[in-house]
Amino acid sequence: MALGNPKGTRDFSPKQLAKREHIQNCIENIYKSYGFMKIETPAFEHLETLTGKYGDEGEKLLFKILNSGDFLAKVDEHHLQGKNSQKIAPQISKKGLRYDLTVPFARYVAQHQNDIVFPFKRYQIQNVYRADRPQKGRYQEFLQCDADVIGTNSLLPEIEFIKIFHAIFSSLQLFDYEIAINHRKLLEAMAKHLKIEKQFIPFTVLLDKLDKIPFQKLEENFSNLGIQASDMNTLESWMQKRSFNAMELSQLSDLMQKSTALEEALEELILIANHTDNQNITLHLGLARGLDYYTGCIFEAKIPKSGVGSLSGGGRYDNLSDAFGLKQMSGVGISFGLDRISDVMDEKKLWTPLHQESTRVLITPLDKSVWKETLKIADTLREQNISTEIYPDHKKLKKQLEYAHKRKIPFVLTVGKEEIDQNKWGLKDMDSGRQKLVSTEDLIKSIQTKN
Amino acid sequence: MALGNPKGTRDFSPKQLAKREHIQNCIENIYKSYGFMKIETPAFEHLETLTGKYGDEGEKLLFKILNSGDFLAKVDEHHLQGKNSQKIAPQISKKGLRYDLTVPFARYVAQHQNDIVFPFKRYQIQNVYRADRPQKGRYQEFLQCDADVIGTNSLLPEIEFIKIFHAIFSSLQLFDYEIAINHRKLLEAMAKHLKIEKQFIPFTVLLDKLDKIPFQKLEENFSNLGIQASDMNTLESWMQKRSFNAMELSQLSDLMQKSTALEEALEELILIANHTDNQNITLHLGLARGLDYYTGCIFEAKIPKSGVGSLSGGGRYDNLSDAFGLKQMSGVGISFGLDRISDVMDEKKLWTPLHQESTRVLITPLDKSVWKETLKIADTLREQNISTEIYPDHKKLKKQLEYAHKRKIPFVLTVGKEEIDQNKWGLKDMDSGRQKLVSTEDLIKSIQTKN
Repeated sequence: MALGNPKGTRDFSPKQLAKREHIQNCIENIYKSYGFMKIETPAFEHLETLTGKYGDEGEKLLFKILNSGDFLAKVDEHHLQGKNSQKIAPQISKKGLRYDLTVPFARYVAQHQNDIVFPFKRYQIQNVYRADRPQKGRYQEFLQCDADVIGTNSLLPEIEFIKIFHAIFSSLQLFDYEIAINHRKLLEAMAKHLKIEKQFIPFTVLLDKLDKIPFQKLEENFSNLGIQASDMNTLESWMQKRSFNAMELSQLSDLMQKSTALEEALEELILIANHTDNQNITLHLGLARGLDYYTGCIFEAKIPKSGVGSLSGGGRYDNLSDAFGLKQMSGVGISFGLDRISDVMDEKKLWTPLHQESTRVLITPLDKSVWKETLKIADTLREQNISTEIYPDHKKLKKQLEYAHKRKIPFVLTVGKEEIDQNKWGLKDMDSGRQKLVSTEDLIKSIQTKN
Repeated sequence: MALGNPKGTRDFSPKQLAKREHIQNCIENIYKSYGFMKIETPAFEHLETLTGKYGDEGEKLLFKILNSGDFLAKVDEHHLQGKNSQKIAPQISKKGLRYDLTVPFARYVAQHQNDIVFPFKRYQIQNVYRADRPQKGRYQEFLQCDADVIGTNSLLPEIEFIKIFHAIFSSLQLFDYEIAINHRKLLEAMAKHLKIEKQFIPFTVLLDKLDKIPFQKLEENFSNLGIQASDMNTLESWMQKRSFNAMELSQLSDLMQKSTALEEALEELILIANHTDNQNITLHLGLARGLDYYTGCIFEAKIPKSGVGSLSGGGRYDNLSDAFGLKQMSGVGISFGLDRISDVMDEKKLWTPLHQESTRVLITPLDKSVWKETLKIADTLREQNISTEIYPDHKKLKKQLEYAHKRKIPFVLTVGKEEIDQNKWGLKDMDSGRQKLVSTEDLIKSIQTKN
């Protein structure tokens, strides 16, 4: 059986890449216009860099790299005989593929802190890897486009990220995007009100499921966390809230037990609401975002009814770089998933014909005896920024024209002994089918004047 | 201890990335001008795709990915108890990181053969991974820039690749590059003449070492392969050959025992020599290139005395796609190592100041009360393609000017209540230190007219 690419990964053809580069350029140009600067980090990190950051579910999806050489030599005998994969894994693997770009970024900032001017605005566009079961919109290798600001507690970055969401989705013609916003401290206030503070993590995991499963079906699970039957209606009513404006936000303080977390969350959300006039943003108290590192405002963007999950997400993390020895560095960032955006644009047929840079002229030399002149005229054309290829085999002209047609090459140039003797070239316009004998000068002009 | 990036990998700062993108653009533009089209393949492949292609040494350097879940469950008990890493590895790992771009490309071509127009000219610029001991010019993750033509036996691609070497190195100002050329069939003819055909692979491995070790020191090793003492001078004299021209090449046929391999190799090399006027190319009968898949012409490019190894290499492979179920598809390609090129350019101080796209204007709002107007004027500037950032914290102006200075931002715009009342803005030119109060219109003009 012939081998293909591994499940959950993709090959990209020239045509597919042109689409991807279009999306990437849109995102990159907007990031740059806001002053973000590009960095890159390696595809793999020390496993300790990655562990403990992504929640239990995320942890299982880390791709681990097997140590080189005789990796079993020093492994614990007892666990080996017990075939204890969980205990053996850290003994035979020290590195893992990056799971996202935020954790490597925090590591980068801590490591290079002396060379960085803070607040540091960086963007990063690289693949990330997750050992997820492949399914629609879910890949094992996919491209994330992140922007983060680190080194400030100001809420201005949150406000600007909401503007960036709008700028990027609009430039991609995805006008019907929706941003959900919430605050991790508001989730804490909810847990406190419901008297399940100790079940905070499982509580957030359940909330995240509300996206796909109706509240009624999860009621029992909520109840198992310790939420009283009398509080169930309260929780359900919170889930209905959608308006993201200062007035409605301030009313939330009457609906929950007072706490510092509640006060702080509302103060921040109100400030943000007062500085955004984005119609596509709604409050979503069920939004939790499973990653362990978020501490403040969180976002998620979707295209309703697109059938693929969130296209973008992000939030504020206060302590992520602590793990790498850099304290008190609050950061906030967003991440666009290029692959899902591309899938949605496919589905919505949003692609206008993309300018795919490709060959302009195919030269067909008659035989080896004219290679020298062929190579020379090809050079001349390339010097004029006309991308040119030479058909390498001496097949029938029909075959070569077929090649030009399939490759959508607009001009074919025939080179034979007669042409060389006359110092002229046979130029065929593939659209019109017309053919003429032209001088080098006319050749360049003819090609450059055609779109 | 704080965690850094894994040994053998690198982080890239915005400044370093600007340099890398400069090299990448040079290479990419030249590939495009020759009609190559870009594809991408996944970072990891099925291990079977990668094994048996890179020689024994290469095979050891493959990064293997540990299977997910309970990977020990079905492992052979016997080998596990014997701690037999070599036998266990294929049982607990099914995927590996790509080692080069040629093998994934051959897999791609076989898999997508029905969608491809042959001869297929593709380029690919992606990282590759090798579990090599990190040292100068040798990384575990590095960027390869490959171009290949597949589906033709013509030697025109070889000739064009020699032109591409010249075009790329010249555009990078690396005029003192040297290309070594050889032919795998010439190596076979040599082995035949020396009566060590059965030791062909170890013979080529030894030849490749001549690059670093003088002939005399390897004489014993050659002798151990079965080369007669009487033939040793012959072998040494072959190694002295350097002229790459038709006349001297044809003389080689008198120096070796006749064979089809010899005839074919010389015919091809002479044709190539007749169509290249590149002064930087020399014949090098010691060049073998360790990869198993080469069958024809092989190349390698270096900068003499740069202290880093080859910057580029390549060759013809006749049967690589056979392994993936596609027969009779001869291919030829070259690969530039971007990292080593960058290292050499660093060493030679070849960098002219690169245009690093960065923020043009830093806006410093007095306090939160002017955020709304600040956001608005930032929008106005960005609409004019002026990249703009807002300083997020309300620190002393001195601090903010310091930030602008360190980030090399040429303009600082102060926004306070007075400015808003007057509908004017305080614009400071960071170079001259001059400050003025300007209207929005004048603001845009001032920024756009300064380089």
